[in-house]
Order: sequence, then structure tokens, then C-alpha cells
Amino acid sequence: MSDVSADTVASALEALRAQVPLVQSLTNIVSANFLTNVLLAAGASNAHIDNVHEAAGFAAIAGGVLVNLGTPDDATAAAFRVAAEAAQSAGTPWVLDPVGVGGLPWRSEIAVDLLQFHPTAIRGNASEIIALAGLGGDTRGVDSASDSIDAVPAALALLKYTDAVSASGPVDYVVGRDRDGVVVGVKISGGSALLPRVTSTGCSLGGLVAAYLAVAQTPLEGLVAAHTHVAVASEIAEANSTGPGSFAVAYLDALYAVDADTVRARARVESFELPAGVQN
Amino acid sequence: MSDVSADTVASALEALRAQVPLVQSLTNIVSANFLTNVLLAAGASNAHIDNVHEAAGFAAIAGGVLVNLGTPDDATAAAFRVAAEAAQSAGTPWVLDPVGVGGLPWRSEIAVDLLQFHPTAIRGNASEIIALAGLGGDTRGVDSASDSIDAVPAALALLKYTDAVSASGPVDYVVGRDRDGVVVGVKISGGSALLPRVTSTGCSLGGLVAAYLAVAQTPLEGLVAAHTHVAVASEIAEANSTGPGSFAVAYLDALYAVDADTVRARARVESFELPAGVQN
Amino acid sequence: MSDVSADTVASALEALRAQVPLVQSLTNIVSANFLTNVLLAAGASNAHIDNVHEAAGFAAIAGGVLVNLGTPDDATAAAFRVAAEAAQSAGTPWVLDPVGVGGLPWRSEIAVDLLQFHPTAIRGNASEIIALAGLGGDTRGVDSASDSIDAVPAALALLKYTDAVSASGPVDYVVGRDRDGVVVGVKISGGSALLPRVTSTGCSLGGLVAAYLAVAQTPLEGLVAAHTHVAVASEIAEANSTGPGSFAVAYLDALYAVDADTVRARARVESFELPAGVQN
Repeated sequence: MSDVSADTVASALEALRAQVPLVQSLTNIVSANFLTNVLLAAGASNAHIDNVHEAAGFAAIAGGVLVNLGTPDDATAAAFRVAAEAAQSAGTPWVLDPVGVGGLPWRSEIAVDLLQFHPTAIRGNASEIIALAGLGGDTRGVDSASDSIDAVPAALALLKYTDAVSASGPVDYVVGRDRDGVVVGVKISGGSALLPRVTSTGCSLGGLVAAYLAVAQTPLEGLVAAHTHVAVASEIAEANSTGPGSFAVAYLDALYAVDADTVRARARVESFELPAGVQN
Repeated sequence: MSDVSADTVASALEALRAQVPLVQSLTNIVSANFLTNVLLAAGASNAHIDNVHEAAGFAAIAGGVLVNLGTPDDATAAAFRVAAEAAQSAGTPWVLDPVGVGGLPWRSEIAVDLLQFHPTAIRGNASEIIALAGLGGDTRGVDSASDSIDAVPAALALLKYTDAVSASGPVDYVVGRDRDGVVVGVKISGGSALLPRVTSTGCSLGGLVAAYLAVAQTPLEGLVAAHTHVAVASEIAEANSTGPGSFAVAYLDALYAVDADTVRARARVESFELPAGVQN
Repeated sequence: MSDVSADTVASALEALRAQVPLVQSLTNIVSANFLTNVLLAAGASNAHIDNVHEAAGFAAIAGGVLVNLGTPDDATAAAFRVAAEAAQSAGTPWVLDPVGVGGLPWRSEIAVDLLQFHPTAIRGNASEIIALAGLGGDTRGVDSASDSIDAVPAALALLKYTDAVSASGPVDYVVGRDRDGVVVGVKISGGSALLPRVTSTGCSLGGLVAAYLAVAQTPLEGLVAAHTHVAVASEIAEANSTGPGSFAVAYLDALYAVDADTVRARARVESFELPAGVQN
């Protein structure tokens, strides 16, 4: 039984609003604007520092760092590396979002290389989590399909490189260690069918994870809090929208409006049983 | 008399919704987010893969590729070339959007170079189409002005490099071969005076062309379908907006809401007579 | 007593709408889309030309140029330099927006280097203006804090490199020479508490400054006009929004709707007394 719950999410949200953590994003050109708006609406701030000259220095002072592999080129790939290394060295929590890993060989190598700097959390969709676990040399789950629950074995396998892993889908599955050091599984329901019709909702969730890692008690709690904030806000947004354009607008309004009471009333955060054989 | 009509547009739209084609975009940093939202709202999907390491491999598996010259630099220009070459080689339909060609010499050379890979369709505004035809060595139309009908001779001249060409304006003019191989002209009326007040409406139309090329019977029908989907959606959006901000939101909602019946009821797709002397 | 007033702002707005100046933006990837939408909504146009091959040639023909240091890399930094040099050489007004200067050493060097090309105006938040003045070799104001009025001594110090300087905040402070060549101070009240919750509102203001410099009687009047257009529009937007998402939409609608009468009725533009010792 996990001790992660709507209450720990509500506490993390209150800490976010009180501390306004500064995220450093190294993200793709599709999501850069929306991700920053998501962070500002949710209650954090963001600086997009992705050049190799400044990325390391800033990672040492940021509250959290996001490395998103959405549109890498040689210049930003070099910045990813120095930012991840500096974050690890300075003790800044950082998030790896392995966009497109698996199908695209060049960025898959980048992702594997970055694992050495021990991301605090990894967030992806099911196929990315499965692919990344396979690339890391562990083939558990690599042959499984695309439902987010199918990514749980791969997510567990990735815990050798990171503290917490999530696989996004209609239901989000998160694994990591609770406050007692026990590996647990947490699932978050909610969201909206319009989320996949708006680009960068996943990438911006990665940014929000970086913000929550800066304020939460544990990486697992930060990762769960970010997913839950998004799930609750997107449910509210769907009720206030008539299509993907108005949904995106309502989503930013809802991220801003959601508070600890909203979370306690609406969050659907539950433990789920891990597959047999998981080492604690 | 062209066999392209509201009915062929409605069929293409149904095919788009059924097949959800995956577009690969190589587009400018201004339009990357909006273009992806347009594709998701309309019913396609998009991956922005514009680095030289991955652009060719992905072009071989994408449903359609967009090469947009809006904000080229040395790195993306190299990716444009390998993506276009790979698309041609793999038989993936690809679209050239020659943003800014004519006035800007460096990208004009890039555009001319890309013509060798036979874009499936070329989409631009009137002055870009006229300029590109002139750069290609054919000066017909180069000295004409900026109304989209003035670009028809240039569009016809470009058919030596491509299968279908459109010139956007208050009325859109499209030329290409019909199912019998006869060169025909099709014009699409509609749209909104607010379209030019929202950035990336033209660039995202280019992305939508790439999506429709993946599902339509002929390049001409795909090009006409994309223009018509946009024209109908923007008319609906204008009726639901009070300025360019709310128009952009309503436009995404309308792209999502428009279905085959809406197209049959509202599309204004007509043949127009080509200038004398066009070779069939 | 300054001769800059709501009337000069209204005149500048009428000139903007009549002339539709073409801005060249070299801006960061977070703001590129929103900045262009702000310019189109306000009544200008924009071309984002930031590669080193085309940046100088375009700066010679643009109405105004924006150089924004938000997300520089080696390629765009080279383009900044040739654009600024070409703008100065051609007499095109240009704006420097020193995003992040002070805390980030690499871009701070870029900013100092650009000062040699005499930006027509400099726009930043208080800490950036203070930092830039310090980097320029003049330490007046460098040790002061973050309220925008605290940046006035630094803004005055920067007048050795530029014609007009603004420091954004809840109240905006602007300094520069009036039509008689006298250094004056102008403050603009208004705005909205939601402005800092939407990314790129500051960066897009920089773009709007470039547009107004192309049409205003003096750099000071152009800088004040841009700030005032934004302040009035954001007040209207706040009244039409329920959070940062709907605020951003209403803000674009309001930039479009505001006309000279709105400005005369709502603008809060006042002189303020400069610190003792300012040389005229």
C-alpha cells in the first residue's frame, strides 16, 4: 500500500504555489511556448536555456531541469549532456522525457547516454518507456504493446537508472520508492480525450514534473503530483470546451485555478499491485 | 471541366479521419506549434523531425512530408535536402512551401535545389509561386503582381517540377492533373479576413496538404481538399470570434468539427478556365 | 514636463495602422509564435529572419528590427550581430531586448557587443536594465533591486548607447529625449496581474516597440506608444478572461480592437521627475 495519495498531491501543490520553483527547460521547438505557459499557469516559472554555453551553469542554480528529446540537433544535444551532468553534480533534480526513442536511432543513443547522469525521473508514453528500457540493455517489456499498463515492467526496469518513472496514457502508471524506500506503483485516472488532440500536453507535463520535483518530499510524490494536477485540470477543461482549440485555453485556466481543495475533491490517485518478483 | 468537387473533398476528409496519416514536418519555429495543433485538430498526426540525422529515415516511413522554408539555417537546410530526397526515393508524397522565396536569395537557392526531388505539391502565396517559377528558369508570370489569380501562369509553369500547385489568397487557385491526366484549374472560395491576422495559418495549411496527399486519390485532389477544409473551417471560426485571438481558437475547434456533411454543404469548389495555350 | 502623452500614443497608433510596418524579428523559440500574433493583431507585420545568410540584407529593408537574447545559440548570435550592424548602417531602427542578461555570462557578452551598433531603443525588465548598465561599464544602479523605478538610473546611464530605454514592471518607466532634445521620464500605468502568467508578453512587447519605432516621431514616442498599447489592451483583456489561457486570447483580441479613441480614453501616460543630476 503506497503512502502516495491525493493528500500528498495537495501538499505538493501548496508547496509549488508557495515556492514558485524555477524550471530550466531544454525542450523541442513545438512545445517551448505551451510548456512555459503551462508552468506559469500552474504556479512555477521557466527559463528555456538550451545552448551549450549556459546550460550547465544554469542547471546548477535551477530548481529543476527538463531534458526533452523532441527536436534535437547537434547543438542542443550537446547542451542536453552538459545540463544533465551539471544537474546531477549540483543535486538539481532533472527529468528525462525520451520523446520518439525507439523508432529514431540517433536520439535513442542520446537517451541511453543521458541515463548515466541518473535522471531523477523519467516520463514518457508507454512505447517510449518500453523502448528506453530495452535500449538500456534490459529487454523486459520491450516486446509488449502500447497500453500504459504494459509499460510497467519496463518502468520498473528503468529504476536502476532513475528514482521514479511514469508512463502516460488514458490512465497514467507511476513507479518509484515511497518514503520508506519501498518500490510501489501508483495509477492516476482522469484526463480528457481531447488531451491527445492538443500538441505538447505531454511535453509540458514533463516540465511540470521538473517543477514538482523541486518541491515534493520524494521523486515519486513529485511525479505523481504533476500527473494528478494535469489529470484534474484536463477534466475541468473538457467541461469548458467545444474542441481542441478551446480545450487548450481552458486547460491553462484550469491549471491556474486548481488548488489543494480541488485536488482533494477530484484526484483519483490509487495504488496498484506490482508484478510478482519486484525487488524491494 | 474538372472532376474535383466538394464530393472529392468530402471523400478525402473521410479518408483522413479513417487513416489518421502521420505527417513529418520540417517547418519554421514560428509555426511549429500551431501547425501541429492544426494537424491534430483536423484529424492527422505530426512529428517534427528536422535534424539531418533522422530526417531521411523518417521521410521513408511518414505518410507525407512538409518542407517549409520559413526559418532555415544551415542545419535545417541540410535536413530539408535529405528529407526531400528520401521522400522522393521512398515514394512518400511531399510538399514544398517556399516561404519568402524571391526576396531572400539564400533560401531561393535552397528552393530551386529542392525542385530536383519533385515535390508532390507546391503551396505558397501568389508572390512566392510567381517568384519560384521565375527562379526555375521560366519567367512567365514573374513580372505579375500579387493577386492569387495572377499566379496561375506561374503555377502552370511549375507543373514541370511537381504534380499540383496552389496559390493562396482571398480566393485560392489550384492547378494539376485530374484523374484522366488532364491539367485543370480549381478555385476555392471562402476563408476569412482574419486568417492573415493569425500567424502560421498558411504554413499549417502546408502541413495539412501533406496529410491529405497521404490519403487522397490524386495530388490535385489532396491539395484541393486541404484548401477547402481550411476555407470552410475559417468561415465557421469567423462567426465564432471577436478578433484574431479568439479566431485562432475557434479555427482549431472548427477544423475538428468539420465533417464530410459540412464540406458538402459549405464548400465552394469550382473549376476555372486555364489561360489559352496550356498543354495537356 | 514631457510632451509625450496619450495624444502622441494615439497618433502613433494611427500611423501604425495606416503604414503596417514590417518588423524583422530575431527572437527566441518560446516567443516566436506569440510575438508574431501580437504584431499581426496590433496592426503590423513580421518576418522572423534570423539566419546569418539573410539577416543583414533583410535588416536593410525592414521597417524595424528586434534582437531578443532569449534563446541564443552560436548560429543565431552570429545573425544578431550582422542584423544589428546592417540596421545601424541602413538607418533601420532596431530594438535590443536583453533577456536574461546579468545572470548568464555568455549572453551578457553578446549584449555588450551589440551596444556598439547603437540600438534605437532598449527594452527589458528592471533587473536586466540594471545589469546591462553595469556591464556597459557604468555601475550606477547595478546594486539596486528589482522594482521598475529602481532601474531608472540604469536606464539613464544606457542613454549613452541608445536613444530610449524602458524598464517593464507593474508600472513601466521610460526615458529618452523629447522632440526638443531634452531627456525626460515617462511612466505608463495599467496592465494586468495576469501578464506575467503568460509567457512572451514581454518579448512580444519588444517586437511591438520595433513596429512603433518605424512610424513614431521619435524613439521615445515609439517606445511609450508600444508600452501604452500593451497596457490598455491587457486591462481590457483581464476584464474578459478567467485565467491565463483566456487572458492570452483576449489580449490578442484587445490589441486588435484598441484604436486611437480607446487610447485617448484609457491611457495612463505621465511624466515623472528624473533623479537630480541628469545631464540635458
